[in-house]
Amino acid sequence: MKNVYKIAIVGLGQIGNYLYREINLKKKDIETKTGKKIQIVAISAKNKKKKRKFKLDKKIFYSNPLKIFREKKIDILFECIGLSDGISKKIVETALKKKINVITPNKALIAKHGDHLARLAEKNNVNLEFEASVAGGIPILRSIKDGLSTNKITKVYGILNGTTNYILSEMENSNETFDKVLKKAQDLGYAEPGNPKLDLNGFDAFAKVRILSSLAFNNQISKHNCIMEGIENIDLKDIKIASQLNLRIKLLGICEIINNQLFETVHPTLVSKNSYIGNVNGVMNAVIIQGKPVGESVLQGEGAGPGPTSSSLLSDLFTILRGNINKPFGVSFLKRKKIKAFNSDNYKNSLYLRFEVKDKSGVLSLITNRLAKYKISIKRIIQTPNKKNKKATIVIISHKTTEINAKNCLSIFKKNKNILKSPTLIRLYN
Amino acid sequence: MKNVYKIAIVGLGQIGNYLYREINLKKKDIETKTGKKIQIVAISAKNKKKKRKFKLDKKIFYSNPLKIFREKKIDILFECIGLSDGISKKIVETALKKKINVITPNKALIAKHGDHLARLAEKNNVNLEFEASVAGGIPILRSIKDGLSTNKITKVYGILNGTTNYILSEMENSNETFDKVLKKAQDLGYAEPGNPKLDLNGFDAFAKVRILSSLAFNNQISKHNCIMEGIENIDLKDIKIASQLNLRIKLLGICEIINNQLFETVHPTLVSKNSYIGNVNGVMNAVIIQGKPVGESVLQGEGAGPGPTSSSLLSDLFTILRGNINKPFGVSFLKRKKIKAFNSDNYKNSLYLRFEVKDKSGVLSLITNRLAKYKISIKRIIQTPNKKNKKATIVIISHKTTEINAKNCLSIFKKNKNILKSPTLIRLYN
Repeated sequence: MKNVYKIAIVGLGQIGNYLYREINLKKKDIETKTGKKIQIVAISAKNKKKKRKFKLDKKIFYSNPLKIFREKKIDILFECIGLSDGISKKIVETALKKKINVITPNKALIAKHGDHLARLAEKNNVNLEFEASVAGGIPILRSIKDGLSTNKITKVYGILNGTTNYILSEMENSNETFDKVLKKAQDLGYAEPGNPKLDLNGFDAFAKVRILSSLAFNNQISKHNCIMEGIENIDLKDIKIASQLNLRIKLLGICEIINNQLFETVHPTLVSKNSYIGNVNGVMNAVIIQGKPVGESVLQGEGAGPGPTSSSLLSDLFTILRGNINKPFGVSFLKRKKIKAFNSDNYKNSLYLRFEVKDKSGVLSLITNRLAKYKISIKRIIQTPNKKNKKATIVIISHKTTEINAKNCLSIFKKNKNILKSPTLIRLYN
Repeated sequence: MKNVYKIAIVGLGQIGNYLYREINLKKKDIETKTGKKIQIVAISAKNKKKKRKFKLDKKIFYSNPLKIFREKKIDILFECIGLSDGISKKIVETALKKKINVITPNKALIAKHGDHLARLAEKNNVNLEFEASVAGGIPILRSIKDGLSTNKITKVYGILNGTTNYILSEMENSNETFDKVLKKAQDLGYAEPGNPKLDLNGFDAFAKVRILSSLAFNNQISKHNCIMEGIENIDLKDIKIASQLNLRIKLLGICEIINNQLFETVHPTLVSKNSYIGNVNGVMNAVIIQGKPVGESVLQGEGAGPGPTSSSLLSDLFTILRGNINKPFGVSFLKRKKIKAFNSDNYKNSLYLRFEVKDKSGVLSLITNRLAKYKISIKRIIQTPNKKNKKATIVIISHKTTEINAKNCLSIFKKNKNILKSPTLIRLYN
């Protein structure tokens, strides 16, 4: 077995830069624990001169990462750029083909090209490790691949995006609007200053769901159409009403097997304030795994930021230094199935529906009649009049109904003069 | 690498018997996932005829487990007897010396002889795996060894014994006494019918603390004297008073580094009902790890029973079948330190003190004077008179004080005619 491992880090943003420092700081400790020597022989980023938190060794700096492959012999590549395609994909492919191990926190890349890259890694007998791509410092992928490997997992769900969880928690605590709290999150470094869209619209959490479902159910990364909703339309008003009902809004990522079919989704969800998941607040992430015979397992930890991410990246490094060759998805590509999609029209939930209406007689019966027409039966109604402007807020909690009924029913509400805007729909957790 | 692995299971109680069935049920799945064939070639227990839940293949049954080594070629031994010494130790030693991998859920054995056995395993280049020895189905040892391997861990604590957690939860829920609830726990199979002592007195949790601390801090298994208290003296009265104070009693196992010294303990602890740990109820286990840079990680799951235990035993089997040779404690025996003991006299906590007294003037001032003498300052007093019998209950919550002050102070209360029995002390969680 090799005794010195040469490392390249490509991408020196928040994560890559922190990782660079951690590896240098912990060099001795890593060598003691694994019995292997390590050496960072190349680093790369677009801009050599950009101000970074920790100082770099400029002598090993490359502006063009592809040049590293031509000029240096490396054993392990850290890809920390973060694109789903382009240069991220290119350098990972190149490395694997050259029998170089790859470690990446890049969920967009893995969720999109994970199968193809895993095949490359297996063919070349090197590791492709991506523990940091899901839930930051929580060793969730390892737990599914190793610790819970013989369980029959039926469902994995949780809070997979720290940014949105922070925003929802902070709106409730501070009583401030979405826009104000988003600004705060950006100032604190929890949300991307430029474009926080991929966090807010659920895309980031959804990429993690795809990775989790492929590991939990041994299926190839699914490309099924699914319900993906973010938190952009969550109003402070809904958070307050939820709170009165002893509920809290969380952006949940869910994957499960229903009738031997695969269902994946990300959407805001009303959960009980007394539930475990209802008490995971701020930037924390939590993942709940239901399996047999193990029962329900919960893993919780900080879901983002350079510290937790770097903890997972280094655990991947350990795996490689210890000489444990793993299949990227636990089992060989050839043995991963394709699971048929569960039709999301049949997804069932209780619904929270908020209507803003003119405070006129007949409006409530109009709403309830239409709900009845689509077989949506009512569990609870809370009507709050606003006498000043002759408007009212009507909140309805329904019994369980299918997604298709909800969609069809809501579409007709858009056309009415007494209903002042499209109703807000939030699903309740079963 | 080998292609067929021959397995022996020694000990066919609840766990061994369930494991035997699981391996047979999941044979195909295991072979698909690991690419290795497995075969159970020997099973052993004291009593061949004992009624068991799942049927055994009597043709491979041995009454004397040592005979297996003489008659069969085996690659993996499951030790499921559970003794800290005697035949358990003997067969594990024999196996390791014969270059046979060992998997065991036996915390008593590992907490007592883990270092010696790990050295044997390392010398013979085989695996000694014991994931199931701590917190049932939760992959906690793997998470520390692999997932969090490069973190500087400073503290690990949690609920490590499902039996006692069930009893405490059930006393609160049902309003029934310790003895009644213990009986219920035994009927449900949560507590040993014959001798539940090792669960109740904290010994079981303490063995787990020893294993956790040796992994988390890379120290040899400590033999330090420590505070170990169980729940045998927890009174329903204390649970009720705690509840009024918005607190809940949990048996916590704790290990941490204080001033570069090692502190390990197990004792009943008052925690807030609003805290995470205060809401882990019933037979659930939970472990909280504080480390840098990862922050705080939480793992929760079912802590006992054949299902969760078998999940962990099979994860160990996977590690071996995948050909991953691991040091039993993550790093080589030679590189594990000996950490000096933190003097438990200096352990600091707020205290809950309950006094049962004669309802006479002067008694309260007697108590408070004595507390003051030992520098125990009072945060809160709740006095509840019982007019019928002229007695009263006085509960005092103190500010933080050292263990030695508490001990010295309490010892003098034993001698007073107005104080009807030795006061009850429960530590509050910091």
